[in-house]
Amino acid sequence: MKHFCYKDTICAIATGGGTSAIAVIRISGKKSFDIIKQIFDKKINNIKSHTIVFGNIKLKNKIVDEVLVSFFIGPNSYTGEDTVEISCHGSKYIQNKIIQIIVANGGRPAEPGEFTMRAFLNQKLDLSQAESVADLISSENKVAHQTYINQLKGGISNKLKKLKQELVNFASLIELELDFSEEDVEFASRKKLIILLENLKDEIKFLVSSYVDGNILKKGIVVTILGQPNSGKSTLLNCILNENKAITSNIAGTTRDLIEDSISIDGLTFRFIDTAGLRETKNKIENIGIKKAIEKSKKSDIIINLVDATHDVSKQINYLKNISQNKDSIFVLNKTDIKTVDNKDDMIFISAKNNTGIDTLKKEILNICEKYKYSDSKIILTNTRHLNELNECLKEINFIIENINKFSSDLIAINVRKALDHLGNITGEVTTDDLLGNIFSKFCIGK
Amino acid sequence: MKHFCYKDTICAIATGGGTSAIAVIRISGKKSFDIIKQIFDKKINNIKSHTIVFGNIKLKNKIVDEVLVSFFIGPNSYTGEDTVEISCHGSKYIQNKIIQIIVANGGRPAEPGEFTMRAFLNQKLDLSQAESVADLISSENKVAHQTYINQLKGGISNKLKKLKQELVNFASLIELELDFSEEDVEFASRKKLIILLENLKDEIKFLVSSYVDGNILKKGIVVTILGQPNSGKSTLLNCILNENKAITSNIAGTTRDLIEDSISIDGLTFRFIDTAGLRETKNKIENIGIKKAIEKSKKSDIIINLVDATHDVSKQINYLKNISQNKDSIFVLNKTDIKTVDNKDDMIFISAKNNTGIDTLKKEILNICEKYKYSDSKIILTNTRHLNELNECLKEINFIIENINKFSSDLIAINVRKALDHLGNITGEVTTDDLLGNIFSKFCIGK
Repeated sequence: MKHFCYKDTICAIATGGGTSAIAVIRISGKKSFDIIKQIFDKKINNIKSHTIVFGNIKLKNKIVDEVLVSFFIGPNSYTGEDTVEISCHGSKYIQNKIIQIIVANGGRPAEPGEFTMRAFLNQKLDLSQAESVADLISSENKVAHQTYINQLKGGISNKLKKLKQELVNFASLIELELDFSEEDVEFASRKKLIILLENLKDEIKFLVSSYVDGNILKKGIVVTILGQPNSGKSTLLNCILNENKAITSNIAGTTRDLIEDSISIDGLTFRFIDTAGLRETKNKIENIGIKKAIEKSKKSDIIINLVDATHDVSKQINYLKNISQNKDSIFVLNKTDIKTVDNKDDMIFISAKNNTGIDTLKKEILNICEKYKYSDSKIILTNTRHLNELNECLKEINFIIENINKFSSDLIAINVRKALDHLGNITGEVTTDDLLGNIFSKFCIGK
Repeated sequence: MKHFCYKDTICAIATGGGTSAIAVIRISGKKSFDIIKQIFDKKINNIKSHTIVFGNIKLKNKIVDEVLVSFFIGPNSYTGEDTVEISCHGSKYIQNKIIQIIVANGGRPAEPGEFTMRAFLNQKLDLSQAESVADLISSENKVAHQTYINQLKGGISNKLKKLKQELVNFASLIELELDFSEEDVEFASRKKLIILLENLKDEIKFLVSSYVDGNILKKGIVVTILGQPNSGKSTLLNCILNENKAITSNIAGTTRDLIEDSISIDGLTFRFIDTAGLRETKNKIENIGIKKAIEKSKKSDIIINLVDATHDVSKQINYLKNISQNKDSIFVLNKTDIKTVDNKDDMIFISAKNNTGIDTLKKEILNICEKYKYSDSKIILTNTRHLNELNECLKEINFIIENINKFSSDLIAINVRKALDHLGNITGEVTTDDLLGNIFSKFCIGK
């Protein structure tokens, strides 16, 4: 955010790269209309907001392009400022030329996210909504899309508003005591206050527990398939992907590299990873593969432990349990077409070879992923910054609960204010330039 | 043009691929507004043309995106039909989802160029203007841009209008005679008619002679550097490109592959090609290189014949003249820092090694390219279809001139009509579905 200055009029190509039918160039700021008056051959005095004018962009009496110009009079625009959008032919030459002409007439190329930052600074969006814009743009599946459109529409902001109101209620009771501090009255029963705080704590904890790394939603849920050599991992991967991605054979150790591919199930993106078979071996290359498999499984979101029904089942289960502990994992018994066992461990029975049991497995994977799914009655937290602020808020609340009987009313009030500030940081009631620079630099140009 | 039907309402993503700040989806046709009524959450009854409404695209009460919708009431739109443009967030998921929703509500994905074809069919553009739209979009340099924006603005159409008027004037004189055919009068002096036709012929010939292959303008003018081994071709290429693209050494035959790169000079794009040195050799690979060099030079627009001042200059000139005959070519004497000769052949003296004389060479290249440049007083023909129609028109005119004293007035009138038809074909007064399909299939989707 080098040039960061709200008084500048900024411009950028807002549409996608490459040659296309049309492209849109955005201008926002005080000088937007003045710039257009210099470069557009139609009169725009007394122009109404949200209207479109057809005409030519000109440079020294030469026509640069035939365009449509849309006018938005602030505050009724995306940024809240006077804004103009030029819809031109999608030639790269024309797009760059028009940007040059705008800059020559007093505009400045926008920094990434600068339009949305202005929308935030002009209170068109709160900070959590503004943050959702970049996430929404990069959403590539239904679940990510629903989560971020909900956040854009104020889902998290509304939830926070409710939490904040409860804290404010709490504060007002305490502050009432401050007014009468010399009389040593206790308007707010400490017992009731603790109940109020405990409730609030539960709600924040619930929100914190809903946290899902936004990248999981956007880039896909990583599912690693683990199992001993020749347990049928590659065949299972092929079953799931419905294609022959992995090379399969009955020679143990066929898969050495990590093979992965993406598939969309029920609006979620999954990245399935086939791994080398896990066993004791002196083969150096195979051992590298095994090490990679275990590392990868530790970073994955779900582990499928594939157990070979034709070998010692208990031994395999114990070995795999050890690796997949603390992870969302599913135990799957393969080769049930050849041999079966008592289902002592709630395993899913499949035959990857015969493509049986795969739907049950997929259903189980989707059950685990239920937590990633936004619903109208459920907010999902996806932003690490929001998570951190909520955790800080929780700390403050715990601190107050622990000390409520020791602290004076004014000390309690100070700590409640601190807790409130952490909630306010999420929606951006107080911000610093550094924070804003950090958030908006992740945007694409033109947004 | 499988689904070709003017009654359909068509839709397409009109902006560039990839993830971007915003994207624009276009809908055109009778049902445009009805479709929007189904999927947009704002009332648009009595909407005015050229206005924009902010709202949500919805699918079964779920918000798909926050959008701006622009309304254009036919005939005041690009296509001449009722048209709607949805400006949404530039996520691929959202763009595709909105297209799906439009299709589910009665739209159909547009074929390439179908919006512009409708503009032509609804007489918003004539055919030569419509053709210029695709060319304009793919213009990547100043000269191509100027040529096609001029064509879009009716440059060629106006020129043709003038030619047609002259032919019509001619026809009216002839047709006057037809009215009095039984009286054997000659209102139009044959001598004067021939002068009129000769003038017209000259004008069409002048237009034909202005023909430049549009690809030269758009993709670049190909300049091949020819010369004997070690004459400094690669060093010259590096000089021109101001970088070290070609590997240079004083070992003859260093360059075997064709090395090429693009550079923009004075608004034109040039593709300079360095070639293998031309000499008698038994080295098979080198011979392939030499063969390639000669082939390439035959397909290039300009040849730079590079002569080594330290070897037999006359011999080199004769050899190169033979290859570059019938081509725009420039003779350049290199290594003038070591040795110089009398400038008997109007050669440009350079030292590629010392970077002297390069500007003079560039100036000479630009002189040759003057013919590619559009100016306000000069039309450039870039479309092969237009060229063919003009040549056919010329044939008809010649045929009339040859036979004017033999033909009766009605025969002359018939042939004048034929000549007029060829001019009319350029602007599309009479067209076939095949012709239109062929022209518009070269467009990108969404235009």
